[in-house]
Amino acid sequence: MQLIQGKVIADQIKEEIASEVKELVDMGKKRPHLAAILVGHDGGSETYVAHKVKACEQVGFESSLIRFEDNISEDELLKKVQELNNDDSIDGFIVQLPIPDHISENKVIEAIDPSKDVDGFHPVNLGRMVIGLPSYVSATPSGIIELIRRYNIETSGKHCVIVGRSNIVGKPMSILLGQKTNPGNCTVTLCHSRTKDLPSVTRQADILIAALGAPEFVKEDMVKEGAVVIDVGTTRVPSTETKSGFRLKGDVKFDEVSPKCSYITPVPGGVGPMTIVSLLRNTLLAAKRDVY
Amino acid sequence: MQLIQGKVIADQIKEEIASEVKELVDMGKKRPHLAAILVGHDGGSETYVAHKVKACEQVGFESSLIRFEDNISEDELLKKVQELNNDDSIDGFIVQLPIPDHISENKVIEAIDPSKDVDGFHPVNLGRMVIGLPSYVSATPSGIIELIRRYNIETSGKHCVIVGRSNIVGKPMSILLGQKTNPGNCTVTLCHSRTKDLPSVTRQADILIAALGAPEFVKEDMVKEGAVVIDVGTTRVPSTETKSGFRLKGDVKFDEVSPKCSYITPVPGGVGPMTIVSLLRNTLLAAKRDVY
Repeated sequence: MQLIQGKVIADQIKEEIASEVKELVDMGKKRPHLAAILVGHDGGSETYVAHKVKACEQVGFESSLIRFEDNISEDELLKKVQELNNDDSIDGFIVQLPIPDHISENKVIEAIDPSKDVDGFHPVNLGRMVIGLPSYVSATPSGIIELIRRYNIETSGKHCVIVGRSNIVGKPMSILLGQKTNPGNCTVTLCHSRTKDLPSVTRQADILIAALGAPEFVKEDMVKEGAVVIDVGTTRVPSTETKSGFRLKGDVKFDEVSPKCSYITPVPGGVGPMTIVSLLRNTLLAAKRDVY
Repeated sequence: MQLIQGKVIADQIKEEIASEVKELVDMGKKRPHLAAILVGHDGGSETYVAHKVKACEQVGFESSLIRFEDNISEDELLKKVQELNNDDSIDGFIVQLPIPDHISENKVIEAIDPSKDVDGFHPVNLGRMVIGLPSYVSATPSGIIELIRRYNIETSGKHCVIVGRSNIVGKPMSILLGQKTNPGNCTVTLCHSRTKDLPSVTRQADILIAALGAPEFVKEDMVKEGAVVIDVGTTRVPSTETKSGFRLKGDVKFDEVSPKCSYITPVPGGVGPMTIVSLLRNTLLAAKRDVY
């Protein structure tokens, strides 16, 4: 069994990005600039955004954090999005989700200029991804593809089973791994809460992607000997063993499942660290105008 | 075995649309108006467009056919697209594909205002479909969903296997049938040329959708007893038995496979007649501003 060390790969990629930024700056070009809009003071969102800002510093990006209180109106937020769309100094930006209920998430996402939508949530980016045109792919699917690529895991002709059909992981993942690309060319099965006899499906997987958000849901008897297992789950569960009072659990019962795997991602340290790196990569693409 | 009579359903839907158009007109509203751009004189395209124009007449739509010669420049075509985007008298329009090689198909499709893209080929419509927002769904997937709905075929929890990963059939179909909708909630497997041991996969299908464009590819030993089989193939093969000198063959070997099926679509008369009806339905939605 080989551990897929997302943390190690993420650090490598950050170094690669940093050296590319240095080259750009040495050539007299401006530093890539990522902006993040944060509405309110949700603990998780604060942490994520802080990590993103820190990651920008590490690779030499400029970053801007734009904060609003919970009571900002939809119109005001849309106005700010428009402003960032038109601000040439900003290459890409994100609106940290969730946003308050009185603001339409879809309206905000659709207001973002697709060429600056480095989260890859705009329908144009999703649609372009589906038909194989250049696009910003959202962070988690993009990170998983990169892990598969860097570990030279064969995907062509393999049966990939994905559990969970979310808009930001399961669905795009199912499209990406079925494309006529490398990584890609998988036979892909997308499963979800309505799937009957799930273990009989997951046991067929050469590559199993667990993205349902249910801690330790995938047990030993659901996995084929020699499978590649990618664990996207990161649920906070209470813990007396950590300072914070919680720990992250994946969707896979690691101790049971890992001995059967050819490759497996740990939680934490697997897919998680790749997501911020995907955002940085998209921002670099945006700065270089490589997609649009 | 029950035959899924696409022709009969399509005629029913046309009557429904016609009566809705009559209501609109009686209320003093304008008739829905579909425009089609046809470049060159490809025989297949001429036929398809003629059918579309005729179908518009049948349901009481206005229609406009805009013709260009093969040597039209990309700029001229894009200018016409822009003109139709801005023409309030036109509710929806299509550019009949294929277009000549010197014109970028993607550029033309992306130039169409998504709210008038009744073919559902624009990335925005595809992307909105993926995340479950209102959108124009392209003709074949939309027609198949409607057949499943009208025949009350149970999809929830069923295993749907799709063979063929085209942008206009296989990929959107895989997303639609996996959505948390009815029809929908299928466990979906998307297969293609790189799939290993395809018969072992297709034999698992409760619902099998053949959309690879290879005449009579799906044989008896690839289908489970009691399966629902949807045949999207329409390949012209030479024939001495028809006036035209050819006949349409599906992707399924009908005589062998049909006795095993609970439901099956014939070719011709199955999925085919539904595609034009889907275009009419999208145009009606456009006229009523139901999507955007």
